[in-house]
Amino acid sequence: MNEPRGHTVAFIAEQVGGRVVGRGDVEVRGINGLDEATAEQITFIMSPRYAQRWAESRAAAALVSEGVELTGGDGTRPIIYVADAEAACIVLLELFRPSAPVPDIGVHPTAIIDERARIAPDARIGPLVFVDRDCEVGAGVVIHAGAMLYPGVRIGAGSVLHSNCVVREHCVIGCRVLIAANVTIGSEGFGFRPAPDGSGLARVPHVGFVLIEDDVEIGAGSCIDRGKFGPTRIGQGAKIDNLVQIAHNCVVGAGAVIAGHAGIGGSCEIGEGAILAGHVGMADHRKVGAGAVVGAKSGIRCDIPPGERWLGYPARPVKETLRVWAGLRKLPDLIQRLGRRPSGRGGRRAPAEPIAGPAPEGTGGPVSD
Amino acid sequence: MNEPRGHTVAFIAEQVGGRVVGRGDVEVRGINGLDEATAEQITFIMSPRYAQRWAESRAAAALVSEGVELTGGDGTRPIIYVADAEAACIVLLELFRPSAPVPDIGVHPTAIIDERARIAPDARIGPLVFVDRDCEVGAGVVIHAGAMLYPGVRIGAGSVLHSNCVVREHCVIGCRVLIAANVTIGSEGFGFRPAPDGSGLARVPHVGFVLIEDDVEIGAGSCIDRGKFGPTRIGQGAKIDNLVQIAHNCVVGAGAVIAGHAGIGGSCEIGEGAILAGHVGMADHRKVGAGAVVGAKSGIRCDIPPGERWLGYPARPVKETLRVWAGLRKLPDLIQRLGRRPSGRGGRRAPAEPIAGPAPEGTGGPVSD
Amino acid sequence: MNEPRGHTVAFIAEQVGGRVVGRGDVEVRGINGLDEATAEQITFIMSPRYAQRWAESRAAAALVSEGVELTGGDGTRPIIYVADAEAACIVLLELFRPSAPVPDIGVHPTAIIDERARIAPDARIGPLVFVDRDCEVGAGVVIHAGAMLYPGVRIGAGSVLHSNCVVREHCVIGCRVLIAANVTIGSEGFGFRPAPDGSGLARVPHVGFVLIEDDVEIGAGSCIDRGKFGPTRIGQGAKIDNLVQIAHNCVVGAGAVIAGHAGIGGSCEIGEGAILAGHVGMADHRKVGAGAVVGAKSGIRCDIPPGERWLGYPARPVKETLRVWAGLRKLPDLIQRLGRRPSGRGGRRAPAEPIAGPAPEGTGGPVSD
Repeated sequence: MNEPRGHTVAFIAEQVGGRVVGRGDVEVRGINGLDEATAEQITFIMSPRYAQRWAESRAAAALVSEGVELTGGDGTRPIIYVADAEAACIVLLELFRPSAPVPDIGVHPTAIIDERARIAPDARIGPLVFVDRDCEVGAGVVIHAGAMLYPGVRIGAGSVLHSNCVVREHCVIGCRVLIAANVTIGSEGFGFRPAPDGSGLARVPHVGFVLIEDDVEIGAGSCIDRGKFGPTRIGQGAKIDNLVQIAHNCVVGAGAVIAGHAGIGGSCEIGEGAILAGHVGMADHRKVGAGAVVGAKSGIRCDIPPGERWLGYPARPVKETLRVWAGLRKLPDLIQRLGRRPSGRGGRRAPAEPIAGPAPEGTGGPVSD
Repeated sequence: MNEPRGHTVAFIAEQVGGRVVGRGDVEVRGINGLDEATAEQITFIMSPRYAQRWAESRAAAALVSEGVELTGGDGTRPIIYVADAEAACIVLLELFRPSAPVPDIGVHPTAIIDERARIAPDARIGPLVFVDRDCEVGAGVVIHAGAMLYPGVRIGAGSVLHSNCVVREHCVIGCRVLIAANVTIGSEGFGFRPAPDGSGLARVPHVGFVLIEDDVEIGAGSCIDRGKFGPTRIGQGAKIDNLVQIAHNCVVGAGAVIAGHAGIGGSCEIGEGAILAGHVGMADHRKVGAGAVVGAKSGIRCDIPPGERWLGYPARPVKETLRVWAGLRKLPDLIQRLGRRPSGRGGRRAPAEPIAGPAPEGTGGPVSD
Repeated sequence: MNEPRGHTVAFIAEQVGGRVVGRGDVEVRGINGLDEATAEQITFIMSPRYAQRWAESRAAAALVSEGVELTGGDGTRPIIYVADAEAACIVLLELFRPSAPVPDIGVHPTAIIDERARIAPDARIGPLVFVDRDCEVGAGVVIHAGAMLYPGVRIGAGSVLHSNCVVREHCVIGCRVLIAANVTIGSEGFGFRPAPDGSGLARVPHVGFVLIEDDVEIGAGSCIDRGKFGPTRIGQGAKIDNLVQIAHNCVVGAGAVIAGHAGIGGSCEIGEGAILAGHVGMADHRKVGAGAVVGAKSGIRCDIPPGERWLGYPARPVKETLRVWAGLRKLPDLIQRLGRRPSGRGGRRAPAEPIAGPAPEGTGGPVSD
């Protein structure tokens, strides 16, 4: 890893509002877990459960939640006591954060910039980048190697585009946006109709664009399709994880959070601050209200009111789904007890497990043929 | 967005076979929704529900389904009445479609073309593209910046490859195929076997290729693995959405439609015109018959006959699954009513929600640690 | 496809330990299925089911499991009998495997290698690759066109990186690792916390890295996030399919197998040799024990003990889930029989299918609007 910066225990204590027991002049060069920390790093202990492992840790110092009693250790290593070691931990992560590597200011000689593009003088554009005509790249923007910008793309100040991401024509990206590697912004939406000549499906033109507001993050490999007309809109501060699919004309509210592999159908609305967990799927035209939370792997088939917690396939209010899941576990016994003769239809016995294969099986098994 | 082309209301009416009420010489420069349309755009009203919002719309004109009564408006803006405003709308989208930006005819000076590759003279190859030896690129093909073609790839006339897609060795792509950004065609299938020396898993060689027939579309980020031997085949006119995985040796029928995040196991067959909705998973070696429709998030564990509609996890005929889902909502009450003593096994009470965490939770929560 | 190498039937029989019936000097140039094999290829017949199709196959020879009686055929084509035709088949695949195309030894003139990077003299680096400062590329490593390495990346001997993959700063990749096209290694994890100023979510710095041990394979489009601190670790010989997401600080055990679209939450542990099938999701901090097998589309909400087979959403031991699934099919009849008046709450009848849309529907339907 990067040459980490060093800080004294006293300085760190000041940053986190903690009190030092022991030598404040000890310098540490990073933060790490109890078992992983080296003799140059500080560690953290948030719960009494881990207190006894302090003795065996090689860490030079520890950040400890007030009230946690450290056992063992020879007392020579300094401790910083804080009210909330978890919050303090994040301060330390920022303190020791290696400066992220970025290209030099200016345009790398192997980047291809169309002469009709406008690049801010302090932007950093890496090797093998392509910026096509009429693009605008704002102040301080970082574009890593291999990113490709189609014509007319606008990138606001302070945004970072990672390697090999693609932004299609006329998409608009706000300020301080992070686009991870291999992301695709602005692909045609998945819209077809029967071909007039009956020869199959014809593409519905999608002439809109994608509008990504300020402070959004888009995770690696995710895809956000352009609108049919008008924008697909990702609201201010929304956070989108890896491998997420957002279809044409969706509106994602400010501060919404969408976890990995979620798939959002066309023209959906996700309210402000709503949270969709991993693998959630959402049928076209559905709405998730502001502040709603939808649990992992849920399949959304109807609108979800603001502030509610939903879960399941199909998604239902979380309490209801948990009751159903609890009931499911009792179902086989119930059927055994009651089900000697199913509904008077005669003695034809349903096969025991007619739908179940012999074993769990995947898409693409390990020893496939 | 692009400088849009302008058309008069009279010309548009002619294109859609509509009748004009009001001035036919008004010129509009695009189509947009009722609320979004500017004073230079035409809008559309397909249902009486929206008719009263015509008064507040800024649109210069409207495309209206026969039989819909517009209320409000001062009568000065022209209206085009048509039998089917939705179909007409698509005609207009095509009319106003900005010409998609493409590289100039020829090979960009920064593209790397192996001297043993054959490129049609009117192909358009953008910057930073790599076309390796023995590739054949057909007439009018467009290859956007950063696309990479391994040796021996063939691309038929009129196909479009978007930025940063990768086509592995010896894959064959038909005519008028659209490959979106960041797609991977022809990666090795996921096939392993116990290593002869017992040291783990050894790769099964996959020496086949991918064959993509004419008029196929493959969405952004999708992956189609090469066959173990012989092809993985995507039939004529099939449409594949973003982030879809199609494993080795699958055969996807003509005109099939596969939505986002669907995952198709090895050696599966998907019949002509079948539809797989989002997040559908399909175990190895399964078949979905021609014209069958499989609902979102279904898990396919057995073959699905032609023309049937299936849904659920595990997938079952849709009516059956809907009956089960309806039944599930009554299950907790049923158990409460009947379940005082489960099947005479004694009083040991199952825990109420033994499998449920405290709250919906995702893969990678928003405030993770 | 590549000019395939030719081998005589006698030579092949020697390689697979089989006995020849017929002429050993017949030469074949590849292996293929019964229906697909050309007159220059050998085919294979592992079961009596396929024996009668031998007569119609054009194949020049066949590899047949001992005990399978071939019917038809005129007896002039040579047969190789083996104990296990499936295993022999893999030997043949390797025999006929075309040598995978690789860039020439050395650095392509259009690759950008920072002067502070160290590249082994026999590495093969293709066009338009970027290797940033302080990277180390080991002996015999192959890096295909368009792959991007951020500063400080280390790649062990014999590894292969395919086109347009991205490896972020300070990630460490072992020996003989295969990274497929469009993979992202080392993106920031999906970690946020409420911003101190109340203005939304602030990023938690993720200053760790990714550690990929020897003999791992990572499929196309997959994403492995860097650790918050310390590594996200992929153990020796693990095999990861396409479009898999592995979040920050996961530990994947040696020889584990993870199929397509699986999504693994933050800080999860997957034991040695465990198998996760397609579309499996795993909530943060969960553990799957060594050798456990988790069926397709399962949602893992609690730890899974070593060696067990689990399935379902939510995931439960596979036998339990199969009993529940069998029970579900009887549930509607059971409710009809018993459910005339639900639990004495009065006559209010629940709507028949309140949660069901009119038809299966996807994320991004084929004829969307």
